Parts: sequence; structure tokens; C-alpha cells
Amino acid sequence: MAEKIAILGAGSWGSILASVLDENGSEVRIWSYNPEQVKELNEKHTNKRYVKDYTYSESIVAYSDIEIAIEDADDILFVVPTQVTRSVARQVGEIMKRTGQKATILHASKGIEEKTYDRLSQVLAEEIAPENRDAIAVLSGPSQAEDVARHDITLVTVASENQHAAEKLQKLFMNNYFRVYTNDDVIGVEIGAALKNIIALGAGALHGLGYGDNAKAALMTRGLAEISRLGTSFGANPLTFIGLSGVGDIIVTATSTNSRNWRAGNELGQGKSLSEVVENMGMVIEGVATARAAYELSQERGIEMPITTAIYKVLYENLEIRDAIRWAMTRDGKAEIG
Amino acid sequence: MAEKIAILGAGSWGSILASVLDENGSEVRIWSYNPEQVKELNEKHTNKRYVKDYTYSESIVAYSDIEIAIEDADDILFVVPTQVTRSVARQVGEIMKRTGQKATILHASKGIEEKTYDRLSQVLAEEIAPENRDAIAVLSGPSQAEDVARHDITLVTVASENQHAAEKLQKLFMNNYFRVYTNDDVIGVEIGAALKNIIALGAGALHGLGYGDNAKAALMTRGLAEISRLGTSFGANPLTFIGLSGVGDIIVTATSTNSRNWRAGNELGQGKSLSEVVENMGMVIEGVATARAAYELSQERGIEMPITTAIYKVLYENLEIRDAIRWAMTRDGKAEIG
Repeated sequence: MAEKIAILGAGSWGSILASVLDENGSEVRIWSYNPEQVKELNEKHTNKRYVKDYTYSESIVAYSDIEIAIEDADDILFVVPTQVTRSVARQVGEIMKRTGQKATILHASKGIEEKTYDRLSQVLAEEIAPENRDAIAVLSGPSQAEDVARHDITLVTVASENQHAAEKLQKLFMNNYFRVYTNDDVIGVEIGAALKNIIALGAGALHGLGYGDNAKAALMTRGLAEISRLGTSFGANPLTFIGLSGVGDIIVTATSTNSRNWRAGNELGQGKSLSEVVENMGMVIEGVATARAAYELSQERGIEMPITTAIYKVLYENLEIRDAIRWAMTRDGKAEIG
Repeated sequence: MAEKIAILGAGSWGSILASVLDENGSEVRIWSYNPEQVKELNEKHTNKRYVKDYTYSESIVAYSDIEIAIEDADDILFVVPTQVTRSVARQVGEIMKRTGQKATILHASKGIEEKTYDRLSQVLAEEIAPENRDAIAVLSGPSQAEDVARHDITLVTVASENQHAAEKLQKLFMNNYFRVYTNDDVIGVEIGAALKNIIALGAGALHGLGYGDNAKAALMTRGLAEISRLGTSFGANPLTFIGLSGVGDIIVTATSTNSRNWRAGNELGQGKSLSEVVENMGMVIEGVATARAAYELSQERGIEMPITTAIYKVLYENLEIRDAIRWAMTRDGKAEIG
């Protein structure tokens, strides 16, 4: 019997993960809140706004009714924007409570919830009752949807405290181009995944300001160090940050002009205002909310995060971006470790 | 009194470091084995073969006589290619023994000596007697000469077991665009610096073969993990590998088309032979010798280094590059850490 998997969210990543799972032989349903998109996916097997020049398998069925989408699903994969994950999870939790359904809960989004500063696995755990889930897991890593769509080699991590679930999910996603590692450090994977978008904003800003490769590599390296400091203060394993969901994702997001967060940073560096940038992008720029959450967490915990602080002050306190970046990058030299 | 610094090697990096030190107020002499280059540096204040469109300060004096170059120097900086470091150090060591000169010995080269597999600080320690040196240090990090030449922000590390020497060198190099951190982990800094060239070859090869950003980020991440495994087996601090001389240098070398090793890998990926690539480049491709040293060390120590192994087999055993890269990148999924 094929595994039944419901994917909630039909953005670029959700719809490409649907293809991977479909190719691997699972029964895949995909949910979108947008009936037009559902119609396009089911009738034309395309998703033009999010993934250009791509045709979906006819066996992937899209739904705009979330209850039908998740019915009998063995696994439910959340790939909606961070800030709506709670409301979608609440609906799912209520349905599951009513029907008694039990599933493996997975997410592949990258952010921290505003105000609560919850990681997404925490949001899911709060909204879906323990009796309705056998595990919560997160899929992350350097994985631009476009590369996966053309079957380029991609390496990702599935993290769960439940090793059995992590290995089941690994088998479901693994094929000859989509390579899946496991990790038990959910905290580290989620913090790396979320905060890398801040570094991508910073790297884009450096580019927009005219800085070169040395400065960008240094920003990524020092950014990794500050993410690792915050993550380990929450109990993350420091080794996670040198893995796929840490440095790997920082590299792909902060060096690729395909990355939304990089592009947003680049436009900020060129002197555009945040509101112009947000308008131009037309899609969620996860790093903008994450920068605030990370900045406030760093303040609360007394953790030095100069790059995050600089980006926060540019986004929320109108600090001039050139000054902010220079401040973050040219602080007093000191010992590199510790 | 200005610090007197002798720089041995007038390639792109040596000559740009000469400029940094000169701007910072040191008395800088630069040695080259090539009298034509010495003449060009002293008469035209250019070094066109290595650094285009750059004029050196008239206060930097070049010498083709190494004994005159190092006379009275407080610090001697080696920036010659890895495989000639020993012969230059031997000359220097003999002169110093004869004259009784004592200096701080620093190098900024990136490689491992063939056959001995010595790191360069070991080579220097073997060739320059303890009574002629107060410390041995290494300068490393993501630092393309071109960026430094245009005063772009660059962050580097100076590592020495002698903290006093590291801090003295930090002060000599530090200015408002060249930012220097210290580290006491010489082994980790040198191994990261040397082996990143293998990863750059691999990333270039992926590009030449047509792979995308996910694959390159994954290669850099898994490459970092294998470098770290080898380095810690020699007693390096694992944290060094997530620093400037580790991941920072991997990022700049493996994402920048300015990098010789990346360009060499790219040509290999496009199907050129090693001898064609070496001939096209006209400068030393450090990663070629380093791949052999690292591969042989990994065999000797039983350390799994699939990316290094793949590059080694392409360079020295005529393995088809497409097969080698696919083998290294699509091994069985496993736990990411450990």
C-alpha cells in the first residue's frame, strides 16, 4: 500500500516536494487555500506563479478543502508561510481531534513565529494533540525548488526526536537525486533554517552596497557563529550548524540570486525602502519577521548577534544600511572562537 | 620605530599584503626570485602578471636577494607556493643561523607539502632553528587579493600557539577594511586553508558538469565535514572549521569564479584533461597536490573523505569526473552527525 501524504501549501517548495514524493510512489494530495491554484494544478498540472516551466504528474491531486486533503493521510507535511502555520495547524488539529486520525507531522518551512518566538515544531505540537500524531519532524537543507524540479542533486536533513519517524520519512523522500540525511536535533535544524534568512538579507545587502566576495564569505561565517550561539543557548547541538540545515542552507540562500531573501537584501542595499522591497517581491520574505524575532531573543538572552542586530535596525529602526553593515563587519578584532 | 617586515613571494597575495602593511605604517620589503618582477615593482610600482590595475606605494622596496630582503626584519612572511616553501625556508634558516637574526615567522600560503604531508608551519619549524624565531604563525581566511586591493572589507585569522605573537601580528595587519581575528589553533587553520582548495575543485567541477546551487552548497557542507574529521584527528579544534579559515575560506574559494582552484575544477568538469587545465592556468593550482596529500592521509588514518577521494581519483586515476562526483554526492543517506 502506498503511503498517503497530504501536503499543505502549494508554493514552490510544497509543490516540488509533492513531485518528489509522487515520483517515489507515494499517494500525494496537495492543499491550497486558493481555489484558482487548485484548479490550475488539477486541470493543467502546472503552478505557474510559483514554479515556471514545470508539469506536475497527473496523479498529484490538489484540494481546496483541507479536511478532504488530509483524510486518511499517514503523513501531513506543512509547507505554508511561517506566520500562517499556526492557523492552518489549528484547523488540522481540530479535524484530527474530531476524526481521531493519527499521522506523522512534518514541516518544511523556515521561520520563527512572531510574538511567541516559537519554532514551527512547537507551533505544531501546541495545535495538534499528542494522540493525533506519532511524531513531529522537520525537513530542511540547501534546497532551492528550481534545482529539485530539474532533478539536480540535492541533500537535505530530516530531523525528529523520534528516530523511527525520521528514518521512515528519509525512505519516503530519498531517491537518486534527492538525498536525505537524518538528525535528532530538531531545535538546531529549525533555528538554522529560520535564521539563515537573516544572513541572506545581509549578504544581499552587501552585494547591493557593492562589497565583494571576501566580505560576503566573512558575513556568512560570522553569521553562522552568531546563529550557533543563539541555537546552543536553546540546547541545539553545535554540530548541526555546520551541517546541511546550517551552513549548507546559509550558502545556498546567501549566494544564490534565486533566493528571495538575498534579493530583498540586495534591493535594500541599493537604497530601496523596506515597503518598496516587500511590494516588488510579491511573496513572503521570511527573513524580515525572523530578524525581529532573533533580535529580540538575542536581547532577552544576552547573546551577541551583531549581524542580526544590524539587519533588525535597518528593517525596523531606519538605520542607514551602509552604516549598519559596516558596524557589524568591522567591530574590534578579537579571538575568533569563544 | 616602524616594524620591519620582509615578505617572501611577490604573487598576488604577497604583494597585496605588502600594501596593507605599508599603509599601516610598517617598513615593507618584498622578495621575488624573479629579477624582472623586482625591477617592475621598484621602477613601475606595478605587478601586472599577478595584480591588474594596481599601483604599489613607492615605499615598498623589492629585492631579488633574499639575504638583503630579510636583513634586520622583525617579521618574515612566507607567501611562496606550498611546494617551494621548504627550499626558501632553508635558505632563510641558513642565513639567520649565520647572522644570529631572530624574527617572528609567519606564512600565508595554503597547502600541504607533498611526500612529507607536513603543514607549512611544520616545514618552517624544521628549517628555521628555534633560536632564530620567537614564534611561528599563519594568516588565513576568505581573502581574495583583488578584494583587498580595492579596500573591500575582509576578515582574516592569525593563528599562533604564541598568543603574544598573534596579537602583535593582528595589530600590524589590522585597519579599517582588513579585520584580523586571532586563533590559537594552528593545526586547524592550516588544514582548513589547505583542504578548501579540494572543495573548490569539486565545486568548480559541479559547475562545469551543469549542477546547480543545491549540489554546490551540499558539496561544500559535506566537504567541510570531511575536512573537520581529518583535522580533528590531528588535534585541531572542531570550532576552527566553522570559522574564517574553514567555512569562510571554503565559501569564497568555492563560490567565486576568481578562484584558480574553482576555475580548474570547472574546466575538468567541462571535460578538459588535467594537463590542459594546468597549462591554461599558468599559475600553481594548489588543490591538485593537496588532493593527493589529503587522500593519502585519509587512507592512512582510516578517515572517510568521499569528496577528496573523488577528486583524487579524477586527478590521479583517470576516473570519469561525472561518475566520481555522482558517487561522492549520492552515497547512502545516513545520520548527518557522527
